[in-house]
Amino acid sequence: MTEGTKGLIFIGDGMGGRPMSEIDGRTTIEAADTPAMDRIAREGACGMMDPIAPGRAAGSDTSHMALLGYEPERYYRGRGPFEARGVGIEVRPGDVAFRCNFATVDGRTVVDRRAGRISQEDDIEQIVAAVRDNIETIEDVQVIFKPSVEHRAALVLRGEGLSHEISEVDPHSPGVEYWESRPLDDADDPEAAEKTARILNEFVGRVHEVLDDLEVNRRRGEIWERQKNGATDDEEIIMPANIVLPRGAGTAVQLEPLKQRYGLNAAMIVEVDLVRGLGEYLDMNVIEVEGATGGMGTDEIAIARAVVEALEDHDFVLANIKAPDLGGHDGDCEAKIAAIEKVDRAMDHVLNYLDFSNTTMVITADHATPCSVMDHAGDSLPIAFFGRGTCPDDVSSFGERACSRGIMGHIRGMQIMDVLLNMMGRGDKFGA
Amino acid sequence: MTEGTKGLIFIGDGMGGRPMSEIDGRTTIEAADTPAMDRIAREGACGMMDPIAPGRAAGSDTSHMALLGYEPERYYRGRGPFEARGVGIEVRPGDVAFRCNFATVDGRTVVDRRAGRISQEDDIEQIVAAVRDNIETIEDVQVIFKPSVEHRAALVLRGEGLSHEISEVDPHSPGVEYWESRPLDDADDPEAAEKTARILNEFVGRVHEVLDDLEVNRRRGEIWERQKNGATDDEEIIMPANIVLPRGAGTAVQLEPLKQRYGLNAAMIVEVDLVRGLGEYLDMNVIEVEGATGGMGTDEIAIARAVVEALEDHDFVLANIKAPDLGGHDGDCEAKIAAIEKVDRAMDHVLNYLDFSNTTMVITADHATPCSVMDHAGDSLPIAFFGRGTCPDDVSSFGERACSRGIMGHIRGMQIMDVLLNMMGRGDKFGA
Repeated sequence: MTEGTKGLIFIGDGMGGRPMSEIDGRTTIEAADTPAMDRIAREGACGMMDPIAPGRAAGSDTSHMALLGYEPERYYRGRGPFEARGVGIEVRPGDVAFRCNFATVDGRTVVDRRAGRISQEDDIEQIVAAVRDNIETIEDVQVIFKPSVEHRAALVLRGEGLSHEISEVDPHSPGVEYWESRPLDDADDPEAAEKTARILNEFVGRVHEVLDDLEVNRRRGEIWERQKNGATDDEEIIMPANIVLPRGAGTAVQLEPLKQRYGLNAAMIVEVDLVRGLGEYLDMNVIEVEGATGGMGTDEIAIARAVVEALEDHDFVLANIKAPDLGGHDGDCEAKIAAIEKVDRAMDHVLNYLDFSNTTMVITADHATPCSVMDHAGDSLPIAFFGRGTCPDDVSSFGERACSRGIMGHIRGMQIMDVLLNMMGRGDKFGA
Repeated sequence: MTEGTKGLIFIGDGMGGRPMSEIDGRTTIEAADTPAMDRIAREGACGMMDPIAPGRAAGSDTSHMALLGYEPERYYRGRGPFEARGVGIEVRPGDVAFRCNFATVDGRTVVDRRAGRISQEDDIEQIVAAVRDNIETIEDVQVIFKPSVEHRAALVLRGEGLSHEISEVDPHSPGVEYWESRPLDDADDPEAAEKTARILNEFVGRVHEVLDDLEVNRRRGEIWERQKNGATDDEEIIMPANIVLPRGAGTAVQLEPLKQRYGLNAAMIVEVDLVRGLGEYLDMNVIEVEGATGGMGTDEIAIARAVVEALEDHDFVLANIKAPDLGGHDGDCEAKIAAIEKVDRAMDHVLNYLDFSNTTMVITADHATPCSVMDHAGDSLPIAFFGRGTCPDDVSSFGERACSRGIMGHIRGMQIMDVLLNMMGRGDKFGA
């Protein structure tokens, strides 16, 4: 075991892709101008990485769990707890946690699942306050509700005899009615599932009643009417956020702190509450960076600076830039390429400011979000290890096809921490 | 989840091989002229595939189970049930099923394990009728016996207190006495195993009595005597089929239907009862093709046409051409190369008639049957994915060494369905 060495995992969120004819049969990583990542590939050890297993599409949550060595098949309990923890709600054993969207409905019909990606902070504040003031408990269950960024929020139900084994409320597409939650057929505790579904449906109904009538939503509704009729040239779409749609029910997660598992004093620098929640569960030092917006306009240099700084007093940092994933979800190749070039600029900064005689760095993605799929896909992802303890191969650029010829072969997400610790000189010997 | 996309797995049975000096150190795939498969490799995503795990030789049954995503270690219950189901015998819980050969014995000594690969249908009919008429039950156990193709047949024992944990009767080589079946030492239910072995030995003895005396066999014996003495120039060897040698005892298999597991409306187009039986267990639409003989002379274009047609009203097809395996078992490089070129002609047809903007195709083998081994071997197999959702690499021909440099790396049989579904846009996301 070597003291004093450093490790960095840098994730370009959803950065993996597929060949697209509109960019000459290249993937977005291949098409992007990425001198820093190409140097990392050229001087480092490359390979392909499957976050879960070949062909299996991972969520950001399950993928980051695997990348940090916590087996998702064993530990994953749904997205809700991570989202809730990410916004600062402690999820206790027995709680059921949900991620939520502010949405726009007409009667029961979903008009927009994100209330026009509501981002007006003053409005959100009033909407959240109305929910909180009016719905503190339902039956004997405490209701804890907190906003995240934009249209996102988290809900925790706390009380006796609750279960996460209930069906979704959010229908995941507009133009249809939102669903009644029901106990799952194979629920372990049908009575608890029945109670939880009932309370959740009551919550959704009461939220709608409270919000539909709210002054701020009446005003937003009027703007929306004018926008629909083309009577304005507003850049932002304003819709009433007159309901909350919960999904991803999950229970408290029991994860061994990262420090305890690996002996690493660790920090996390990420832009999404979901992954931040995982960091909180792992007792990592979750560092906020000014200018890290989680959007296309995020300040990647501020993130890179924070990474370099964090490695001064931590052994290990996991960092994630969200932007590439957004381009992939929107099916916007150009935006995704620009986002990947943002990641590259962050890597350039990191290359210039870290001491790689002492530091091992990994650059990869948490999953593919191909522009042709507009959702997560199960494709293998390029990965490159750089710096201390690596065995450089003859791959000369970073990308899907180039890295597939690298020395690391195909590895799984669950193996990355072992490989990294080995390169850092901090691995354990199995046997004597 | 994308509706309307199609998937095809095309298997060249036993197509994998090893370098042979007689074909200039090439494998049979490498030596064969395969323009269609080379195009698939050139325009597709290549790799190597281990049906079970590196170095482990698979049977056709266990390999096809894995290729379809049903873990053989968990679900395999012996070959018998597949063979029986493949010839149309329903194998019920409690039944013990066997695959059988018609064979030629002199006393207890096996002269030929396949009765000269008996193929005279009229003779087989009389032989089967004699077995059936004379042996309907043994003790309290019902005997169900049905022929398959050529020298192959299936036997099911149905009654109380039976077990598959018994030793083989077929000694697997000529020139030795056939064996008495015995309960396995570690049988879970020794009494049931004792009873089953006793009934099976009684069946074999009575079959021999019945068949040895049969008119058709006396005639076949006379021809065989003349053939042995070189007194004829018949092309076909005719031997008396005077016994049935059972092997591969197994019990009923419980497999979740393929449609239920993957949501795919699926068909199977194969030439061997064993694999057909698996298709029946999975509730796939098992399609018979006129001219698909399972032999060297099979009509590969008829098979390819049937595949194209099946994909019109199915989401997924698994197809298998048996011929390459026969060449491998016979140690006949030339025949195996000719058989591989047959598979290639089928692939050419498929390439010309399917819409690959919408369809993902996999070409591979279920196991290696190297001519130098003359049996299944555990070598890794070339695999190529072609069409929708693939990321083409720079492999330019189909074969063991060429594909080993492909983007897919080394994958396992159990991963193929996940990878294929991902390319088809029909995979599930794990996490959020």
